[in-house]
Amino acid sequence: MARPESDRPTTDIPTDATTRLSIGVDIGGSNIRGALVDSVGAVHTVIAEATPDTVKELDDTLTVVIERLVADQPAGTVVGVGLAVAGFLDRDRRIVRFAPHLPWVDRPVGEILADRWGLPVLLEHDANSAGWAEYRHGAAAGARVGVVVTIGTGIGAALLVDGELFRGAHGVAPELGHLQVVPGGRRCPCGKRGCLERYCSGTALVDTATELALEGDYAGPLAQTLRAARGGVVGRDVVSAADAGDPLGVDTMHRFGDWLAVGLASVVDVFDPDCIVLCGGMARRSIRELGDVQARLRPLATGGAHRPLPDVRLGMLGETAGLIGAADLAAARFGGPSVTAAG
Amino acid sequence: MARPESDRPTTDIPTDATTRLSIGVDIGGSNIRGALVDSVGAVHTVIAEATPDTVKELDDTLTVVIERLVADQPAGTVVGVGLAVAGFLDRDRRIVRFAPHLPWVDRPVGEILADRWGLPVLLEHDANSAGWAEYRHGAAAGARVGVVVTIGTGIGAALLVDGELFRGAHGVAPELGHLQVVPGGRRCPCGKRGCLERYCSGTALVDTATELALEGDYAGPLAQTLRAARGGVVGRDVVSAADAGDPLGVDTMHRFGDWLAVGLASVVDVFDPDCIVLCGGMARRSIRELGDVQARLRPLATGGAHRPLPDVRLGMLGETAGLIGAADLAAARFGGPSVTAAG
Repeated sequence: MARPESDRPTTDIPTDATTRLSIGVDIGGSNIRGALVDSVGAVHTVIAEATPDTVKELDDTLTVVIERLVADQPAGTVVGVGLAVAGFLDRDRRIVRFAPHLPWVDRPVGEILADRWGLPVLLEHDANSAGWAEYRHGAAAGARVGVVVTIGTGIGAALLVDGELFRGAHGVAPELGHLQVVPGGRRCPCGKRGCLERYCSGTALVDTATELALEGDYAGPLAQTLRAARGGVVGRDVVSAADAGDPLGVDTMHRFGDWLAVGLASVVDVFDPDCIVLCGGMARRSIRELGDVQARLRPLATGGAHRPLPDVRLGMLGETAGLIGAADLAAARFGGPSVTAAG
Repeated sequence: MARPESDRPTTDIPTDATTRLSIGVDIGGSNIRGALVDSVGAVHTVIAEATPDTVKELDDTLTVVIERLVADQPAGTVVGVGLAVAGFLDRDRRIVRFAPHLPWVDRPVGEILADRWGLPVLLEHDANSAGWAEYRHGAAAGARVGVVVTIGTGIGAALLVDGELFRGAHGVAPELGHLQVVPGGRRCPCGKRGCLERYCSGTALVDTATELALEGDYAGPLAQTLRAARGGVVGRDVVSAADAGDPLGVDTMHRFGDWLAVGLASVVDVFDPDCIVLCGGMARRSIRELGDVQARLRPLATGGAHRPLPDVRLGMLGETAGLIGAADLAAARFGGPSVTAAG
């Protein structure tokens, strides 16, 4: 059921007369990653930068990325820029309303940067961009109702219905990470308690391991490390411990898997998808932890014994999914005749 | 914000040449309610029967309802029948897969009854039917993304996007009542624990009141009645007690309101609607309990301070919403030229 995940390699740019490129830039809280993307979703010339803290530095850094990507291309080859943004956008995709890890607030980013760059600019939510990429060129291709769930430090989601991104009435992407799943539960930076993201994400693993270590009598190295220096342990350490057979690590991953199954059952209940694609840093490990996904979902999804359940697949585009999707949306809007879906 | 709810009165059937009627039948676990519905959603000649336990009796009872409704109409006036069913249907709306309170299992109800009645028959999920009615002729008219939530003995939901019912990839309506909101929480007849419906529905009120009575030192009549004879108390009694100022009743309704706010915040997170309509037996009381809905939702919905929140309204069609919606869908499919949306 799972397909192999791979970051697409940077490939030579085709040189035939039909070459049309767009630029995709994924603007995350820590890093900016930009690339040229061609009409079949292949990625060329990836550039990565740290994400600055101020509006001026952010705009300047993005400008450097765009200039370097455009520099060697013949005039007119690059049709536009798509920016994948981890934040709230207005419905028309002109304004970044608020992004928790970026300095833009109520800023008409598209127009400002388009004027500066002399290229049309489109904004999209980063989870939507990744979802669109997986639909156009990856594991969600052909889905009637596809949900692309990104599991990393947090949880992101995109919903694709009959070949279109569902953006809601106000342009806010489907938000699953902050559904309350434990009343009075773990504190979340969003201000609430008991959000799904606090139990089912890479950053949640350390909390779970710490709670389990307090409850049980664990002897392995992970429990020792946690007791000695909790501050130094990150989610990746928990995964590594589990993979090495550490009992606390294994139990922590089981809890993660249980929460993930509950979360995916909620996805089944509310969206009734035929395809769920898992992306992000925890995706591959998640698929492994879930095991027989349909068997896990059947007792958790409402009427699970009497309804078809979705195929659950690993994303195919890795960490470039966001920029590929943004570039593809920009190509579709600014590139003239519509492009053809792969898959 | 709230509009008045009213069961539409049975009105005289218009007699001009453009009269076109369809039949809507709402088939619930306890009662069957059928009526003639005209092209503006007005209800004529309502017939109610108890829901039988066997397939033969159910089919026979429905046949009696249809025959009585058709009896006095000129031939050709009634264009078809829409059945609103509380259960899982296949995507093509031909087969009832499974309905927890009905004897039909994997039965091609539409064809069987169409043959028997000599009229085309369409099936729709009851929550979808009610949602469609509120969109076409009620409180959700004009919604870009509308969610119609039915709160009674359980929770039902319908999602309307750009004027169409969202049915998912397999025809299963959006299901909110059995999302897990309390790990290891109250037992649900669905087999799981901690489902939203067990905290936020008419039937949940007695459980909440009983738990509160055990925790606190309540003196009012509801607490006394619960101690004396728990089995005899139903949700309606709790609501009445609250409305009479009984402290346990009031606290129980506050808890209900808190859960409802959490549930609606989840609706905002996953669907980003511009309009939420509350229907069902608990709807009017729910709106009152919520008070300033937007103020309740702002801290609970993700990014609530940075996004538009939906208007929350009371349904306008009362308990006939389900049959009106089913009839309207039947009229649209079987009645020739498309009908015009009111509102």
